[in-house]
Amino acid sequence: MIENTRGPTGMSVNRVEALSDGVFAIAMTVLVLGIRVPDGGGAGGLRAQLGVLWPKFASYAMSFVMLGVLWIGHHFQFQYIRRTDRPLLWPNLVFLLFITFLPFSTAVLGNYFDTAIAVALYGGTVMVSGGRLLLHWRYATSRPQLVSADLEPAVIASIGRRIMVGLALTAAATAAGFVAIPLSLGIFLLIPATYLVKSRVDLHVAGRQTHP
Amino acid sequence: MIENTRGPTGMSVNRVEALSDGVFAIAMTVLVLGIRVPDGGGAGGLRAQLGVLWPKFASYAMSFVMLGVLWIGHHFQFQYIRRTDRPLLWPNLVFLLFITFLPFSTAVLGNYFDTAIAVALYGGTVMVSGGRLLLHWRYATSRPQLVSADLEPAVIASIGRRIMVGLALTAAATAAGFVAIPLSLGIFLLIPATYLVKSRVDLHVAGRQTHP
Amino acid sequence: MIENTRGPTGMSVNRVEALSDGVFAIAMTVLVLGIRVPDGGGAGGLRAQLGVLWPKFASYAMSFVMLGVLWIGHHFQFQYIRRTDRPLLWPNLVFLLFITFLPFSTAVLGNYFDTAIAVALYGGTVMVSGGRLLLHWRYATSRPQLVSADLEPAVIASIGRRIMVGLALTAAATAAGFVAIPLSLGIFLLIPATYLVKSRVDLHVAGRQTHP
Amino acid sequence: MIENTRGPTGMSVNRVEALSDGVFAIAMTVLVLGIRVPDGGGAGGLRAQLGVLWPKFASYAMSFVMLGVLWIGHHFQFQYIRRTDRPLLWPNLVFLLFITFLPFSTAVLGNYFDTAIAVALYGGTVMVSGGRLLLHWRYATSRPQLVSADLEPAVIASIGRRIMVGLALTAAATAAGFVAIPLSLGIFLLIPATYLVKSRVDLHVAGRQTHP
Repeated sequence: MIENTRGPTGMSVNRVEALSDGVFAIAMTVLVLGIRVPDGGGAGGLRAQLGVLWPKFASYAMSFVMLGVLWIGHHFQFQYIRRTDRPLLWPNLVFLLFITFLPFSTAVLGNYFDTAIAVALYGGTVMVSGGRLLLHWRYATSRPQLVSADLEPAVIASIGRRIMVGLALTAAATAAGFVAIPLSLGIFLLIPATYLVKSRVDLHVAGRQTHP
Repeated sequence: MIENTRGPTGMSVNRVEALSDGVFAIAMTVLVLGIRVPDGGGAGGLRAQLGVLWPKFASYAMSFVMLGVLWIGHHFQFQYIRRTDRPLLWPNLVFLLFITFLPFSTAVLGNYFDTAIAVALYGGTVMVSGGRLLLHWRYATSRPQLVSADLEPAVIASIGRRIMVGLALTAAATAAGFVAIPLSLGIFLLIPATYLVKSRVDLHVAGRQTHP
Repeated sequence: MIENTRGPTGMSVNRVEALSDGVFAIAMTVLVLGIRVPDGGGAGGLRAQLGVLWPKFASYAMSFVMLGVLWIGHHFQFQYIRRTDRPLLWPNLVFLLFITFLPFSTAVLGNYFDTAIAVALYGGTVMVSGGRLLLHWRYATSRPQLVSADLEPAVIASIGRRIMVGLALTAAATAAGFVAIPLSLGIFLLIPATYLVKSRVDLHVAGRQTHP
Repeated sequence: MIENTRGPTGMSVNRVEALSDGVFAIAMTVLVLGIRVPDGGGAGGLRAQLGVLWPKFASYAMSFVMLGVLWIGHHFQFQYIRRTDRPLLWPNLVFLLFITFLPFSTAVLGNYFDTAIAVALYGGTVMVSGGRLLLHWRYATSRPQLVSADLEPAVIASIGRRIMVGLALTAAATAAGFVAIPLSLGIFLLIPATYLVKSRVDLHVAGRQTHP
């Protein structure tokens, strides 16, 4: 079956995906712009100047991975979302608003990696982004006409559960920031690791792939 | 019916949409680059430094929402525009020119939120963007060969009317900036709210969705 | 006829278009980042500070329009280019290299609008970009397997001629910069105007549109 | 045969390509933002100020070409990759992480072009990017269900070999940076030249093009 991307089937999701991919691509790429390039003005040689930048490199890499996790989550949802309507455009836009804020939170964390407020701002940005992704999924799946007909309740629940596990870990990491910052960063690093675990969603998608 | 995206049907709109989505995605993402990241140089702790940034956070969030409103308007138009020609490329490009200017107006507003000139510059940018979107729609719908055959006059008028309501509110908000700035900002915040109201366009699109 | 965008027909042009549209969208949007936002540090009120920025606003708007002209030229070429091969990827990439340089030339012109070197750098960037676009078209059209079968020699020549007219005007504008800068800028502004004139290409595309 | 881009065939590669093209387009365009625009503050006229920027222009152009080489490599792989799964999303994301880091390495090289550490940082970024591209290809081709059925072992090996030649040259260029920097830069410039040589991959793709 060939799906029309425009025409009688209504509002397509193509441009929603295009806008979202654009925002993710830019957010991922401007993360590094938050790191000031050594220009010979500081003390010590280049090696020393790069050395003191390690918290910035670490927060940049961590945020890139977070954006990767959130982008994969968004991508998985749109494997099943077939159409959109005006009320579904807004949860996606608000989700993207927090995605565009992550480079700011990342730069603050790079400058203040030993400050609980910076960890809280960072963790808060990630949590709200994840929360918006969950709301987006709940809205979409509550309207059968927007999603694929073969979307099973078990897959709906599984995708929601994955986001909630991520949210719980982010909440734990953020709270840990007020106790011990290294513990907090360790929990943040666990988040992408959980996404490497196979789940019912992967099996379902794999099942779809092998029976075309 | 399957539509060719290139070939005998002439100039496709795909790349116009791709360029436009790219400009919107970037404009949305660079808004936050207008906020200087605290780097320990200012007075007070991080909390205090973030606190004084609130006008910048507010104008960034407001502009993101404005860009969302304008992007949705563009997206709705292209639900019905099927082909383009050279004279229609330019109104779209000039529309995008003002979209790329919004991050500048936003950063000025963030620095001078208590200055009527800054509100006027901001409101003017939004108004001209909306006005260009209206001109784009008028040009496209004046040429039947560019739009979908099932586009009814009532939908043409309804999309035009929505833009004009937005323009009227923006004009009111800009004018209010010369009287009382909080009033002005309040009216600006009303604009996205009007876009949550269902209209004839939504019903029409929904109707198209349910009859594939 | 439905064209495969991937598969046995070889290297599709979709990603070449996607990369190019992305570069144009970003170049158009970062132009404004070259204008420093007034932050209260300068002399005079906001109105005065915005007033002194007029050369920057003018060069930003002019460059946006130049990018529009070059994007339309690229878009017209890909109305007829159906496939790509490795040797055609490079002329496109080198063309994009100069597109990415235009924001730099624009910012230099905004800072030194009364200096012939700045006009020469700007005009040179535009000329080389246009020249690369012409080379790209010549390479593509010299290989029948890469272009649409219905591409007539008259259209090949017409697209080439349009680029050459633009190049001649850019050369004249650049040379005029060494005599009288206002004359130079006046000629630059003529360039987009020539693109509003209907040509054989438009008629051909229109003809294709009306006979699907 | 028409391929569904969404639906029962599973996770499409469209959005992976869209995100990757976006990251490449942005990385290519922000390279130039690493060059500070002369603003009249330096000594000498504009000509002198532009003159001292030559290492920055050179590293910007070299990096643009490197990004072009890597983008073409990515594009070639996706000529054959038809589907993706979660474990293949991550090698692509980590590849993109290093692509986003290249503008930083480039700016450091532009500031410290006569310093071995800067050459090593730059060469290291390019090497790791190329290495990730190779891992991505190895993973994808180890799973027959992800690639095109007509992908021959000779093409798999040929694409892998091309990347390894590039990696070897990058390693040589980086090592040479500790001996003589001009030698190093000369080897870097060889890398794109090797990509102009026709290979089995091109013949294969050409063969596919001529038998549709």
